[in-house]
Amino acid sequence: MLSQRTARLTSSLIRDILAAAQRPGMISFAGGLPASETLALPRLEDVPDGVMQYGPSEGEPALREAVAERARAMGMRCDASQVLILTGSQQGIDLVSKLLIDPGTPVLLEAPTYLAALQSFQFFGADCRSVALGEHGPDLDALRAGLAAKPAFAYLIPTFQNPSGRCYDAAHRDATAEALDAQQVLLVEDDPYRELVYDEACERTPLCARLTRAPWIYLGSFSKTLAPGLRVGYLIASPELFPYLLKLKQAADLHSNRLSQWLVLSQLQGDFAGHLARLRTLYRERRDQMHAALSEQLGEAASWQCPPGGLFFWLQLNTPGIDTRTLLPEAMARGLAFMPGEPFFPNAPAAVSAMRLNFSHSDPASLRQGVRLLAELLHEQQEG
Amino acid sequence: MLSQRTARLTSSLIRDILAAAQRPGMISFAGGLPASETLALPRLEDVPDGVMQYGPSEGEPALREAVAERARAMGMRCDASQVLILTGSQQGIDLVSKLLIDPGTPVLLEAPTYLAALQSFQFFGADCRSVALGEHGPDLDALRAGLAAKPAFAYLIPTFQNPSGRCYDAAHRDATAEALDAQQVLLVEDDPYRELVYDEACERTPLCARLTRAPWIYLGSFSKTLAPGLRVGYLIASPELFPYLLKLKQAADLHSNRLSQWLVLSQLQGDFAGHLARLRTLYRERRDQMHAALSEQLGEAASWQCPPGGLFFWLQLNTPGIDTRTLLPEAMARGLAFMPGEPFFPNAPAAVSAMRLNFSHSDPASLRQGVRLLAELLHEQQEG
Repeated sequence: MLSQRTARLTSSLIRDILAAAQRPGMISFAGGLPASETLALPRLEDVPDGVMQYGPSEGEPALREAVAERARAMGMRCDASQVLILTGSQQGIDLVSKLLIDPGTPVLLEAPTYLAALQSFQFFGADCRSVALGEHGPDLDALRAGLAAKPAFAYLIPTFQNPSGRCYDAAHRDATAEALDAQQVLLVEDDPYRELVYDEACERTPLCARLTRAPWIYLGSFSKTLAPGLRVGYLIASPELFPYLLKLKQAADLHSNRLSQWLVLSQLQGDFAGHLARLRTLYRERRDQMHAALSEQLGEAASWQCPPGGLFFWLQLNTPGIDTRTLLPEAMARGLAFMPGEPFFPNAPAAVSAMRLNFSHSDPASLRQGVRLLAELLHEQQEG
Repeated sequence: MLSQRTARLTSSLIRDILAAAQRPGMISFAGGLPASETLALPRLEDVPDGVMQYGPSEGEPALREAVAERARAMGMRCDASQVLILTGSQQGIDLVSKLLIDPGTPVLLEAPTYLAALQSFQFFGADCRSVALGEHGPDLDALRAGLAAKPAFAYLIPTFQNPSGRCYDAAHRDATAEALDAQQVLLVEDDPYRELVYDEACERTPLCARLTRAPWIYLGSFSKTLAPGLRVGYLIASPELFPYLLKLKQAADLHSNRLSQWLVLSQLQGDFAGHLARLRTLYRERRDQMHAALSEQLGEAASWQCPPGGLFFWLQLNTPGIDTRTLLPEAMARGLAFMPGEPFFPNAPAAVSAMRLNFSHSDPASLRQGVRLLAELLHEQQEG
């Protein structure tokens, strides 16, 4: 009775973890939530009258223009007519899946990659292939070979990647764009973390800005900088792809919430730069606190790169062969939630001995206490 | 490069009509917009702090409970755990399509039916079959035969149907529910217009409340009663279907806008009954004005049922063989937009000589002037 794709709806492990992480007293490194104290309630003065009525599927014209202006400042060629406002950038992943994936369609991803994108692509039946992500970007030989096999698209998160926190350097950005252009493979670039930069020297110009021949879809979000609860994101697409995406958006939910589009616009037009600066200061402190706690408690048990931006540490246990999913029940019993590494891999190896730790949502005391709980658990594990 | 389903994205005729209908000076009977003066801007006092943060995919618990309570008052067996808050009820159609439709899946619909549902089902590859809708409900013999062929589901709009304005009477509701139960075919009941009732004697108890064996999904909306711009709708599902729909919702946009859920809840907890009473009074007047204008100007050229609720007149021209799409360019040149009948049919006959006219969004002078323009056009057509 149900569709074939429904059988590909993946397990509820992640939902279960995130739900359990809400329990009182639980320290959660599991989700990717902004710090709640950074989420100011908006004032609703001067809201234009029309926002309660049906609106355009494309989004509010003034917000599309503001997004285009910001995209141009990032180095992209972008007209407002290429901007589609979304109900969160997660919706962009759904639209991309509908636009591009039939059962068996090959798709190229980083390993590890954003698990909710992976789930959506697999749900629509994609043949998900992966390229290992190194410290400064993807394995370029593997990337070129993967693109030569002509996937329908490559889904990449070059800047402060989820879950790894890594940021492609300029050489890897250039080489990746060149390889995409050479094969004319469509790039879907997911870029929700770019404003959360803590080490300013990072190269952050989008890959889309470097392309000259390959078509592209760029996904952006206001959830990490303004308010996830408003569900406002956007995509920017090559002109030839835009009309399809617009029809798909209309079929999905007619248009995005107009009140929230207006609230986002009014914040972009206010002191958004100052807000971002404060956000970076707060999150940089928390990153440094988690890095210090990890160095103190887990310096011998695990390895990690201190992330130059974004929301996550990606912790690789030094003892191989431990599937971190097996650690989770005991961790949660002691009051700590984290995200095991396995669901982030398109084709997971036998035992993924990595985990993702969020540092934006916990206060300093919880960061220290959570790392202490994790260290105790890992040390017992090694002894036991 | 694009998915096979993208080739089934239908034409942009409807988008073009609705876009053109926005032009200054145009009288639009084309869309289904609430009267703008009924859409009050909310006050944002007492908004709970948490609404800017990520929230549950199911929706806000208090809103789910309020929806369940209203559903029970309509006669449905409904617990809050069966309620999923949606980004507009259009999203429910997208989720239903994903859950139930593979290429070639048979689906049973009324003819005519809601065109954006039809488009979504066809986009996912459904084999759309239809049952003619009579004055008091579907042709019951055709319905029973259609259900005996075991479609994956039946999509029905029993109350103030879009586009026909018709309302199943009690006998047709009972017989339809009985036929669904007999074949255990899943019912998707779309019910966005139920509160816009002008002739109070209408039987409006949902079909879902009458089912005893068939699974069901009920789609509800706040767009017609509170504010379409907020994009808040909901579905209620048989318990066995709920977990799938929840996962699909999460994959589509994580969760619905929390601020808007709170605004809807606060209006439900306020004088919602008084608001509905005022809305019905206003729309009843406009319905009566359009009915009077049509009777005066088009009594010989067309036939229609004065709709007991909802937002639309469905006008059948008395001269057969006129495809109303051919009238549209000249009508729009003279300043009138309407929706031609053809896109509302799963398998349209050669020339659909019907059209849908909205009466909620135009003021009395525009209602009269629009009908006058239409009458002139039709009289010229008959003479020409």
